[in-house]
Amino acid sequence: MEAINVANITKRYGDIYALEHVDLNFEAGKIYGLLGRNGAGKSTLLKAMTNRIFPDDGVIYLNDQPVMENDEVLHQMYLMSEEDMYPKSMKVKDVFHWTDEFYGCFNMEKAKELAKKFELNINKKVKDLSTGYQSIYKLIIALSLNVPYVFLDEPVLGLDANHREMFYKLLLETYMEKQQTIVIATHLIEEIANLIEEIIILKNGKVIVNQPIEDILAAGYSVSGLAKDIDTYCEGKHVLGYDVLGGLKIAYIMGEVDKTSLKDTMEINPLNLQKLFVELTKKEGEI
Amino acid sequence: MEAINVANITKRYGDIYALEHVDLNFEAGKIYGLLGRNGAGKSTLLKAMTNRIFPDDGVIYLNDQPVMENDEVLHQMYLMSEEDMYPKSMKVKDVFHWTDEFYGCFNMEKAKELAKKFELNINKKVKDLSTGYQSIYKLIIALSLNVPYVFLDEPVLGLDANHREMFYKLLLETYMEKQQTIVIATHLIEEIANLIEEIIILKNGKVIVNQPIEDILAAGYSVSGLAKDIDTYCEGKHVLGYDVLGGLKIAYIMGEVDKTSLKDTMEINPLNLQKLFVELTKKEGEI
Repeated sequence: MEAINVANITKRYGDIYALEHVDLNFEAGKIYGLLGRNGAGKSTLLKAMTNRIFPDDGVIYLNDQPVMENDEVLHQMYLMSEEDMYPKSMKVKDVFHWTDEFYGCFNMEKAKELAKKFELNINKKVKDLSTGYQSIYKLIIALSLNVPYVFLDEPVLGLDANHREMFYKLLLETYMEKQQTIVIATHLIEEIANLIEEIIILKNGKVIVNQPIEDILAAGYSVSGLAKDIDTYCEGKHVLGYDVLGGLKIAYIMGEVDKTSLKDTMEINPLNLQKLFVELTKKEGEI
Repeated sequence: MEAINVANITKRYGDIYALEHVDLNFEAGKIYGLLGRNGAGKSTLLKAMTNRIFPDDGVIYLNDQPVMENDEVLHQMYLMSEEDMYPKSMKVKDVFHWTDEFYGCFNMEKAKELAKKFELNINKKVKDLSTGYQSIYKLIIALSLNVPYVFLDEPVLGLDANHREMFYKLLLETYMEKQQTIVIATHLIEEIANLIEEIIILKNGKVIVNQPIEDILAAGYSVSGLAKDIDTYCEGKHVLGYDVLGGLKIAYIMGEVDKTSLKDTMEINPLNLQKLFVELTKKEGEI
């Protein structure tokens, strides 16, 4: 079932196209990974989807209703992002209170329980929180709101490894329970690879990948071995890129595994999402 | 050869011990990973080592010279951290200039070349840079300074995957060339696992791990399989923790691999540094 329909969205800032003719569908009850380099348009897209900015062209629909200035629709969505929706001098517990007032579907008990788990003091003012806790209090809101659409823009910025792992587990639990539509934009790609079902990659404001994660990972493979063997093996193949470690070389290849010209000293492995992303979005001059 | 000697350092903030009787040696020409939860004392230690804060107790020596208010010693060290050493209204190129004035060993040509690689506009003011570029301009300084001691506190905060990978490669190149002593404090543990030789873990201001990375990873293993089989297998063993995925279970175990009670359906794997860290530093009530 199609839930959100992004129809031919374009957004310019001066001469720069932040988004250019973007068409996307987000189905209900799925978890999406929204990936892209810094500046690729991820945050712009999420802000347009939640009516925080207006596209220059195109329309975004939630269940066939345009999201633009549509309160009923906006009450069904929560966007967690770097921006604060309330004054930074407000205490965390008051942010919880006003979020509840606005949405009317905030589970305060769960929020307080999560604050304990993360050791967040909700009597603190937002501005006095560290980088990690600036993220954590918003994550708690995202996990405690009973809205069907949750968008997370860099949810784990500044979190230590334990808190990141705990968040991924809690997000999955919440998803199992509520079957929400979740979109995660993050630079920590490998960490969400097991969490997401669908993957969207933006590059310079355009969609370059939009498919189930299994499909894209199954579309290629990596092969490692002695540099000269790898060079020979790769001839005529669709090579995304290489890594070199001393005399060894790893090639990232799209297409089916070709076993005919494989040597015993060479090793085939599945593609890794982060590596695939890096190769697909590399710019000229980057090593 | 011992280069930096941290001798019985204690630092309190009010009632809280940020560091408590910390003893550490950093040998010349090695790369160290300095790991810990948010608030474990990593930044405090790095700031004490570079004379930005003063310990309440203990002394830090660089080649037998105390670092405290010792200009000659401090000119040999660079600490990259969240704090800015210059006004945020300064342009990046002027920060480069003043860094050169202070240290007298800044490779301006290399810095400009790196700025191109990272697409950093050095005519921008520091305050106008995004989170990622706030890190990047400091990374460029760290890579371009010819000092023997480089300390990096959360070097890749806000960087996309491509820029992170490029930074790790450049850091290794610089290290190969200059054989500096490098200390990296980061939450992205798995990404630096192949980069570091020695690992130090702080927990609540105390050192709980201080050894070569190979040694700690070889000190244990993980075993996965059906939950009931894993429970039986783990009896009497030193289990750090578990992960549960439906009916499957993974146990993280210290000690030599016990193959006698292993079933065909169970799988043994090496420990992963990030996972090991999470289990060693988990707090009560965390999942």
